[in-house]
Amino acid sequence: MAVHPLWEKYPTIQNDLIETKKVMDKSVKIRNKNITQALQMFFEAGGKLLRPAYFLLFSKFGEADSDKKAYRMAASLEILHVATLIHDDIIDDSPIRRGLPSIQQMYGQDIAVYTGDFLFTVYFHLLATSTKSFRTIEMNAHSMKRILVGELDQMNLRYNMNITVKQYFQHIKGKTAQLFEFSCFEGAYFAGCSKMVQLNAKRIGYNIGMAFQIMDDVLDYKASATDMQKPVFEDMKNGYYTLPLILAMEENQAVFTPYLEKKTELTNQDIEAVNELIHKYQGIEQAEAIAERFTDRALAGIKKLPNCEERDILYDVTATLLNRNN
Amino acid sequence: MAVHPLWEKYPTIQNDLIETKKVMDKSVKIRNKNITQALQMFFEAGGKLLRPAYFLLFSKFGEADSDKKAYRMAASLEILHVATLIHDDIIDDSPIRRGLPSIQQMYGQDIAVYTGDFLFTVYFHLLATSTKSFRTIEMNAHSMKRILVGELDQMNLRYNMNITVKQYFQHIKGKTAQLFEFSCFEGAYFAGCSKMVQLNAKRIGYNIGMAFQIMDDVLDYKASATDMQKPVFEDMKNGYYTLPLILAMEENQAVFTPYLEKKTELTNQDIEAVNELIHKYQGIEQAEAIAERFTDRALAGIKKLPNCEERDILYDVTATLLNRNN
Repeated sequence: MAVHPLWEKYPTIQNDLIETKKVMDKSVKIRNKNITQALQMFFEAGGKLLRPAYFLLFSKFGEADSDKKAYRMAASLEILHVATLIHDDIIDDSPIRRGLPSIQQMYGQDIAVYTGDFLFTVYFHLLATSTKSFRTIEMNAHSMKRILVGELDQMNLRYNMNITVKQYFQHIKGKTAQLFEFSCFEGAYFAGCSKMVQLNAKRIGYNIGMAFQIMDDVLDYKASATDMQKPVFEDMKNGYYTLPLILAMEENQAVFTPYLEKKTELTNQDIEAVNELIHKYQGIEQAEAIAERFTDRALAGIKKLPNCEERDILYDVTATLLNRNN
Repeated sequence: MAVHPLWEKYPTIQNDLIETKKVMDKSVKIRNKNITQALQMFFEAGGKLLRPAYFLLFSKFGEADSDKKAYRMAASLEILHVATLIHDDIIDDSPIRRGLPSIQQMYGQDIAVYTGDFLFTVYFHLLATSTKSFRTIEMNAHSMKRILVGELDQMNLRYNMNITVKQYFQHIKGKTAQLFEFSCFEGAYFAGCSKMVQLNAKRIGYNIGMAFQIMDDVLDYKASATDMQKPVFEDMKNGYYTLPLILAMEENQAVFTPYLEKKTELTNQDIEAVNELIHKYQGIEQAEAIAERFTDRALAGIKKLPNCEERDILYDVTATLLNRNN
């Protein structure tokens, strides 16, 4: 059992994440062996386990009453994340995820719907059996609800050429930053940290999530398919206009319109042309500058945390993660 | 605001259900007005609210500490039920539900996936904010997990001509009886009834759910499209072989094989032929006899409950419900 190489430098958290992954593997053991195996392969395929990691890192700023419970809560966050990924792959009709065929691709859309649903129940069950805090349950329910309201909002934005930066921020808040924010906060809350640390954890998580998603969206325009183990320009084809495109379009919408009007009919040549326009109007540089602002805020927040070894790890990991394309 | 005419005869429970429906309507108010409206229309379209009703009826056998909380818990059960219906309609590609276009049909599969997911979070949130019992949370998580494991099991049974009665029972247990069982049990548990009443509630719920689902499956072979406000022979086309077919096939598989081998290629004429074979080999009568056995057990269980007005209502409602085709 191994976790992503990102964690090799930090043996304590690496070990915590191995334990978390064991909980995840065990939690999806069901009669239907195909599903169990597909999910375990998916876990094995090297997600960075960022949400559990941030939960666990923040839990070190206080006193967690039980490691075992911490692993279960950490696992619940990743399981929730994977549930949303599986359903996202149905919506996007994605054939590949983490270099493996998506559940949708392997078993069809029907199984993918139920597998995601099943993971929601696993999340709920892990959570229900690892906390004795009603506030935790309630905050989880609230957070999960915001994620799904965000997903529904985003559906209204598809193929909308007039999408604003503000709308994009709202969308990635729900899609990504919400769960990062919650993972950090929940770690601090779980370990009984002060209100101030809890609040700071929340802000740090939000800024990490925002920076992370923007950089991910930027990569969609920069990387080649083999690098990223996922299809490129997926977002554009599916009508999700992300920050590089939104910024490039801001004062130049007219040149983009003839392409984007084609919606699902966009050819590869069209996509290449839009890509060039985005580069020409510096959509990527502008988006990266905004991502950096979020990264700076996250790192500044981390510096304000109580001085300890975990703070340094947190800083180091976050800096590494958010500059992954340098 | 009105609820299904089934409840007109019982003003107390009718009023409780109106309050429950108010909670449901309120719980789905989100920024995305289309979704809110579609869900409220769906609630309005006259589901019988059976799961909340059984929860509330069983809660009268003890002392519920708050009506308001009872309505929220009752609402959570129906919301969970509707979430699974919406996802079922994706799997079955169903155009109609309760005489209305399904969410899938109205807004497409993408919105249907997220709307179901959103309702899972609403369920979770209603539950988290209406109980202070960890046991309740845990039992809900466990029950929800069993429902989804059941859905996944069922996928393996599609287009399987050798499906046994036992496998069918296991399948409808997860699909329907689990939530009936849990609704009855949770009502008794919520109101602090004795262990004996709780256990009896569970068994009664199980038997009601089994009878209800078998009768529903029988109706698929009996009713015309206009009667039922849903498409007929859906199950057969989708490869779900239900009890009337399974029983008719038991000693006569050879005559069914040439048709069922066609799977999705079944023509309307083929379906008509299979339907005639099912009638010929008394699949419907046999299935109805089995449903009656479950109904008898449910009614016998109800008779054993403490003698009170609610027991009579419970008996009356259950008898009416399970003989709806007479």
